[in-house]
Amino acid sequence: MARIVMKFGGTSVADLDRIRNVAARVKREVEAGHEVAVVVSAMAGVTNQLVKWCQDLSPLHDAREYDAVVATGEQVTAGLLAIALQAIGVEARSWQGWQIPIHTDGAHGKARVEAIEGEVLIERMRQGQVPVITGFQGLGPRNRITTLGRGGSDLSAVAIAAAIRADRCDIYTDVDGIYTTDPRIVPRAKKLEKISYEEMLELASVGAKVLQTRSVELAMKQRVRVQVLSSFEDKPGSLVVDEDEIVEKPIVSGIAYSRDEAKVTLRRVPDRPGIAAAVFGALAKANVNVDMIVQNIGADGTTDLTFTVGRADLARARDVLEKARAEVGFESLLADPDVAKISVVGIGMRSHAGVANTMFRALAEKGINIQVISTSEIKVSVLVAAEYTELAVRALHTAYGLDAAPAAA
Amino acid sequence: MARIVMKFGGTSVADLDRIRNVAARVKREVEAGHEVAVVVSAMAGVTNQLVKWCQDLSPLHDAREYDAVVATGEQVTAGLLAIALQAIGVEARSWQGWQIPIHTDGAHGKARVEAIEGEVLIERMRQGQVPVITGFQGLGPRNRITTLGRGGSDLSAVAIAAAIRADRCDIYTDVDGIYTTDPRIVPRAKKLEKISYEEMLELASVGAKVLQTRSVELAMKQRVRVQVLSSFEDKPGSLVVDEDEIVEKPIVSGIAYSRDEAKVTLRRVPDRPGIAAAVFGALAKANVNVDMIVQNIGADGTTDLTFTVGRADLARARDVLEKARAEVGFESLLADPDVAKISVVGIGMRSHAGVANTMFRALAEKGINIQVISTSEIKVSVLVAAEYTELAVRALHTAYGLDAAPAAA
Repeated sequence: MARIVMKFGGTSVADLDRIRNVAARVKREVEAGHEVAVVVSAMAGVTNQLVKWCQDLSPLHDAREYDAVVATGEQVTAGLLAIALQAIGVEARSWQGWQIPIHTDGAHGKARVEAIEGEVLIERMRQGQVPVITGFQGLGPRNRITTLGRGGSDLSAVAIAAAIRADRCDIYTDVDGIYTTDPRIVPRAKKLEKISYEEMLELASVGAKVLQTRSVELAMKQRVRVQVLSSFEDKPGSLVVDEDEIVEKPIVSGIAYSRDEAKVTLRRVPDRPGIAAAVFGALAKANVNVDMIVQNIGADGTTDLTFTVGRADLARARDVLEKARAEVGFESLLADPDVAKISVVGIGMRSHAGVANTMFRALAEKGINIQVISTSEIKVSVLVAAEYTELAVRALHTAYGLDAAPAAA
Repeated sequence: MARIVMKFGGTSVADLDRIRNVAARVKREVEAGHEVAVVVSAMAGVTNQLVKWCQDLSPLHDAREYDAVVATGEQVTAGLLAIALQAIGVEARSWQGWQIPIHTDGAHGKARVEAIEGEVLIERMRQGQVPVITGFQGLGPRNRITTLGRGGSDLSAVAIAAAIRADRCDIYTDVDGIYTTDPRIVPRAKKLEKISYEEMLELASVGAKVLQTRSVELAMKQRVRVQVLSSFEDKPGSLVVDEDEIVEKPIVSGIAYSRDEAKVTLRRVPDRPGIAAAVFGALAKANVNVDMIVQNIGADGTTDLTFTVGRADLARARDVLEKARAEVGFESLLADPDVAKISVVGIGMRSHAGVANTMFRALAEKGINIQVISTSEIKVSVLVAAEYTELAVRALHTAYGLDAAPAAA
């Protein structure tokens, strides 16, 4: 007997047939003797419609009213799923964020979960009832509904799993697990049986959009075992777990890529203390996130400073820097949005040398120029021209031996 | 300065343009110096969709889950209207039933309002904020959402008006007031400037479906002045008020009709004590409402018993009576669904004789046979063959001098 949280995303509950299908899955777990709590998203498309209404009425709408409006999507799904479960003989009831409650801070539209009173849920589960909980939302400090930001239902599921001390949090989605890379680029990408939180975070934040980043951070912090699996097929998915659970630590677990980057180079920046602080301080104040940073060794008292920002932030970054030009004193600003970040991720890197070298050699063999390099404990990232994205991902996937064996003829 | 509740139904908030239109109306009242609270229904069609989903999943669905699902419609409208109001410079916030709270009993799907904590609303209104309140719903005894039944938003509006001691409760709808009869039948029907609660109750329950009956009962009990007016045109509507506010009490205020009746006659029922109790007891136990009842004077120890039931209940009524046949002992059962009830309503009847006689004469002149008659203090109703409905309504409207003067050429 285990205690499981099952979370179903928007496509998994998109219509009544799919809601019935979800109910059948939940019933199977209940009949296997498990204690089950379910977390649901809004039916696919509903949240977008609600968001659009708010924006059409006022681009600068009150976030508290936005939350009251968009939170209804999950409320509908939770009630309908409870009805569908009861219809097949599974005792169930819906819970809205404010009913449990799921306490959050007051940052409407992107609230943080602060505490969940899980005891009432545990008690119901012990009595054989399945709580069906609205994802994505909670109760703010002034008795008002808050939402956790897009993709927040994953976060709700993990937070609830922690609060009820669940053995596992199963995230049902439209992919069947986490792959060594994007299967649309590399058809021979392999599904990972297990992956560590740290690796998942690196993969998620560089573009493998299976799990919302904050939900992985929370899972890591609270040591919640997360499984990603398909709501349409009936097979095991990928487990996201503590490193200690992974016996054979692969040197490289996966190849990620992101096309959401833009490169900025400041030419002939005075090479003296305080310049980096002036540049990045100005960007930070304007809420522009900077990722990779390289500074060349300078000649004649100047240097070139290169870094990446989110592509959506490029115009703002340029603006901020032009305004700071007098203070910083650079000669020119070059901006290049046509770049991609390719990352090699693996916890085994900690104990293995030569990982970066394999990467550089594989890219060189394909004639791909590396523009910027950055490394962390379990990741090596490079910036390349965007047109090389697929080629680079494929080359690296093969170079690290990640390709699946070809299917038998 | 007055304190006003403004209630808008589903067609008045059917899309964003209409919501903006509602916001503009609210702004006008606020700018006139009034304290305003708004009550909204779900956008037209939304509640029906939600109800259908519940029914499709399970015809015998849990009413508590039904309530959680359908209550979302008003939540969306309230948030959107708050945004629309803020966008034109009117301070506003949405309130859901559980936030105020609007306490109800636990009869999910048709709950009764028990208490409303109106002080917080009054305080906000004094500070210049417009509360935008979800109609149709409240908070039940176990911290669960309840709904008040279809048309319940009228009831919410009146209950809130009572709780905040409003000077008036304006019900905005798709008609511009209460007429002496259905203008589709009598184009020269007149809009009533004022009508008493009692008359409105008689008119509503016999078919003039402008205000939900329970909301009129509550308005009468709590002495809430109700105005019915159009949300699409800009002119005064009809006031539903205490009789004392009506200086010139008309003998007849309006002619109502209902085609939702069916007539049942039990032939040759034994004429002895206890028979009526046996018949109507059996019907009551089966939840069949009986309206008009006539018993002829009997001969040879038997009598004929005629009464009306709702047309939708006719099959059930027949069933119940056939089963009770042995006990009751009637000879035959005649059922006629092709009947209509025509009613003449007016508080002036209390002090005027001859009202019924005018009715009977007017109908006789048109050759309309009266099948059953029933009277109350302020109403005379007759049952006629359904095909005479329009003719009867027109004849009575003219007979009581209710026709408007013809428009000037």
